[in-house]
Amino acid sequence: MAKYTIGLDYGTNSVRAIVVNVSNGREVATAVWNYAHGRDGIILSRDPNLARQHPADYVKGAEESIKKSLAAAKRTVKSFKPEQVIGIGVDTTGSTPLPVDKTGRPLAFQKRFANNPAAMAWLWKDHTSVAEAEEITRLATKMRPEYLTKCGGTYSSEWFFSKILHCLRTSPKVFDAAYTWVEIADWIPAMLTGTESTGKLTVGICAAGHKAMYNDAWGGYPDKKFLRKLDPKLAELRGGLKDKAHAVNKAVGGLTDKWSARTSLPAGIPVAVGAFDAHLGGIGAGIKPGVMVKTLGTSTCDTMVSSMKKPLADIPGLCGIVPESILPGYFGLEAGQSAVGDIFNWFVNYIQPGGKKAGSHEELTKAAAKLKPGESGLLALDWNNGNRTILVDQRLTGLLLGQTLHTTPAEIYRALIEATAFGALTIINRFEEYGVKVQQVVNCGGIAEKNPMVMQIYADVTGRPMKISRSAQTCALGAAIAGAVVAGKKAGGYSNFAAAQKAMTGLKPKVFKPNPKAHAVYNELYALYRKLHDAFGTQRPAGGSLHDVMKKLLDIRNEVRN
Amino acid sequence: MAKYTIGLDYGTNSVRAIVVNVSNGREVATAVWNYAHGRDGIILSRDPNLARQHPADYVKGAEESIKKSLAAAKRTVKSFKPEQVIGIGVDTTGSTPLPVDKTGRPLAFQKRFANNPAAMAWLWKDHTSVAEAEEITRLATKMRPEYLTKCGGTYSSEWFFSKILHCLRTSPKVFDAAYTWVEIADWIPAMLTGTESTGKLTVGICAAGHKAMYNDAWGGYPDKKFLRKLDPKLAELRGGLKDKAHAVNKAVGGLTDKWSARTSLPAGIPVAVGAFDAHLGGIGAGIKPGVMVKTLGTSTCDTMVSSMKKPLADIPGLCGIVPESILPGYFGLEAGQSAVGDIFNWFVNYIQPGGKKAGSHEELTKAAAKLKPGESGLLALDWNNGNRTILVDQRLTGLLLGQTLHTTPAEIYRALIEATAFGALTIINRFEEYGVKVQQVVNCGGIAEKNPMVMQIYADVTGRPMKISRSAQTCALGAAIAGAVVAGKKAGGYSNFAAAQKAMTGLKPKVFKPNPKAHAVYNELYALYRKLHDAFGTQRPAGGSLHDVMKKLLDIRNEVRN
Repeated sequence: MAKYTIGLDYGTNSVRAIVVNVSNGREVATAVWNYAHGRDGIILSRDPNLARQHPADYVKGAEESIKKSLAAAKRTVKSFKPEQVIGIGVDTTGSTPLPVDKTGRPLAFQKRFANNPAAMAWLWKDHTSVAEAEEITRLATKMRPEYLTKCGGTYSSEWFFSKILHCLRTSPKVFDAAYTWVEIADWIPAMLTGTESTGKLTVGICAAGHKAMYNDAWGGYPDKKFLRKLDPKLAELRGGLKDKAHAVNKAVGGLTDKWSARTSLPAGIPVAVGAFDAHLGGIGAGIKPGVMVKTLGTSTCDTMVSSMKKPLADIPGLCGIVPESILPGYFGLEAGQSAVGDIFNWFVNYIQPGGKKAGSHEELTKAAAKLKPGESGLLALDWNNGNRTILVDQRLTGLLLGQTLHTTPAEIYRALIEATAFGALTIINRFEEYGVKVQQVVNCGGIAEKNPMVMQIYADVTGRPMKISRSAQTCALGAAIAGAVVAGKKAGGYSNFAAAQKAMTGLKPKVFKPNPKAHAVYNELYALYRKLHDAFGTQRPAGGSLHDVMKKLLDIRNEVRN
Repeated sequence: MAKYTIGLDYGTNSVRAIVVNVSNGREVATAVWNYAHGRDGIILSRDPNLARQHPADYVKGAEESIKKSLAAAKRTVKSFKPEQVIGIGVDTTGSTPLPVDKTGRPLAFQKRFANNPAAMAWLWKDHTSVAEAEEITRLATKMRPEYLTKCGGTYSSEWFFSKILHCLRTSPKVFDAAYTWVEIADWIPAMLTGTESTGKLTVGICAAGHKAMYNDAWGGYPDKKFLRKLDPKLAELRGGLKDKAHAVNKAVGGLTDKWSARTSLPAGIPVAVGAFDAHLGGIGAGIKPGVMVKTLGTSTCDTMVSSMKKPLADIPGLCGIVPESILPGYFGLEAGQSAVGDIFNWFVNYIQPGGKKAGSHEELTKAAAKLKPGESGLLALDWNNGNRTILVDQRLTGLLLGQTLHTTPAEIYRALIEATAFGALTIINRFEEYGVKVQQVVNCGGIAEKNPMVMQIYADVTGRPMKISRSAQTCALGAAIAGAVVAGKKAGGYSNFAAAQKAMTGLKPKVFKPNPKAHAVYNELYALYRKLHDAFGTQRPAGGSLHDVMKKLLDIRNEVRN
């Protein structure tokens, strides 16, 4: 009798559950539940930087998506029974920390905090904590430089401690009411297994290592002395954080009777340690040494793994180098671009070029596909949302150069796509400069699925074949694989990820191969991209630096807006 | 009985005739005739650099526009009779040279050349002759550096000898068939007075001095030895060029009987030496020492005059410093921006932002007017058509910087307007750096008339009041003033330009005064503009130069297109 696992994938606007056949990775059912709170699941305010989620959506979302996915599985496989499900894995956005009381109950569930955004989950893209991030970066640079070596040299406003410190500063009542803060990647598995209370909680190495400066080498989370310098209350909070973080091959517990009753899944089936979407997505796309998995969506996340048996240099600009954050036994490496699809969407939705008819993604793609590399004379920087890797600078902005009086929307659209490809190449080069060979690139996510022109440009720019993951839901699939590993071989799962990935993941037959002629032109264009990249993105001693231009414009903007 | 003169204004797409009351400058009638050939009067080809005009349009255009204007004058002033017209002035685009035979007949009127663009008028904005311009610049730099001192240090592809040399190289049959080449500013007055033949032709100092390196100081046009180095055939051509060029206070002759019959104007009335539109526009806007006249259209032309009684330095980057090219007795100084309205038109017509409804000039202006200086965080370079002053480099291209995921079309529209204002300020500064004080700025042209937001931004950026010429047709009015001067006092005209301008020109009551707060912000933004301007526009010894970026992109573009 076939065995199945469930992958629960908590995205920015909705949660998805998929039911996967453990023997071959076939996704027999998928169900999506849109979060009920806020706008498309996001609580907004007048401050454009604020983005929160209500944790009630996580609870309701698990129930609804699991129930719907099981019903769908029955429609696909007539003999399917929920009893055949042997494990669950969970992936989420992150860093998305949630303030909870000592029992692990979210503060937002208390009446007094029900409508207080500070008591909700601070969604990954919440940018309220820029000042605190700078403060943490400054202090760490001076006092604990090692803390920054594994996260690109700059602590981000999107991350765990920046958000907590901002809450402490701006919503002290919420901060004081919180016993601790838990990443939703940890809280959701805990909720399903009844292990939310501080004593029982298991935290994942993925969130802790990439976003909270956790590392076994220095005793886990940042020490009290360091945190005290930021605020004594932050040092107190340190006591409530766990000593040890775990990889996704560990189960946090078994599904509770209550959740069994709510979903009709068997009670006691193991739920894996949670991890971030792109990290489990890497697993779902077949990540292994030498394989870069690119998740191409509104932004990108590029993941790689590197054996822990060999030493690995600190790679400047990477958002994280964390032991076992993706696969047990391997360093997990994360890089990414702050905006990719978001830049194309900006052009189509905000600039609305070419009118409604000619200005859609489809029509612009059609026209852009007819252009040869270099033909437009345009060159762009992909920084409309800052630069995550390798410059780690959110205060960089977009640039378009080479416009004439004849430049068309399709030419600009293509230049924006090429800019993101140049950004991708810069990341690949950075990995290789520090000894992490990129032998294969596997793409997943909406853009990789839907836009062959983008994939061909990526192949032509990087000079590497672009492969596409077989699954369209690599994050959820990766979660389901984690479910199969924590279930174990005896229960019909696997004893390790290598075996599980071999059986459950694959590539599409279509491979986008680089065209040597196009690649040669792109090599010339990339040299120019890199020149602009360095001139505007890096501090240089000579008088020629343009590093201040974008920042001064933002300073002026902030001044006149206030 | 009132006296009138006619100003004939040959633009890029149409010719306009106005009938002006000599005593007060009142424009009693105006008539426009759209050129019949090509697209909007311009002959195009697959080469986007090519732009020609058919000379038949100049002939037909004179007849149609004069006849219509006289009819319109009768409707406005019941007692009006064509006999009251005492003189004609002509302004045209330029450098727009036309190949003709020895009788002065355009080659395009010959059957064998009727459809050959090389035999037509090479419109000012024809950019086919870039290589030849570079060759001329190189040779002059080495052999006759003085030739370049009066035209900004670089000979342009838009100018007389570049175009003739390109014709020689690419259309030798046309070149060999031409006895000489005549600027249309000279050919049209000659046509009206029957003085087209080489023996009778009178050429204007405006076209010769600004575009053909003519200067009395070195004996007129470039010498044969110099031209022979470019091509022996060019040296032969030199023999057919006139020895002496004249200012607009000279009549080239009287209206022929034939033209009298065609138009019902009195035969024999004087036609003034022709000049370029912006130069006669300067006169129509009341140019005098200390006054900069800005003609704001698709591109701009900024004119000033400086007394010939004082020595004047060579001002680097100006397109021309020519004795008497605007007003007799004064150096005529010309600067300009290669694209202004054309950049706004590009954004509206090519990029078509915001859809049809929100993307019009009117709606974008409305939304852009609500923005504060600096609020968008955007900064642009106004180089979509190269930079005429002060960099004299057609191979520079546009740049937009500071885009985020929230940047709107109105923000970009405003940034483009601001970029042209920064370009304008750079020109004003250059004049003043070399001792030519800019005490007043008088604007004319469509944009100055129609868009108060643009004028306010220009005032705020430059920190100077922006005044507007009373006449909406300053070029045609300037031509009419020249007609009144060549008619002379006895015939009811004037004995000099000062008297004619005093009577016939004026300013609008509305003056755009700089807002000190806005000006302070723009001072900060201008420092950044200047930083980008110098980084991308000038060769700098240090490694920081980005001077090659735009050019390499054009090289790559040309390579892949071929």
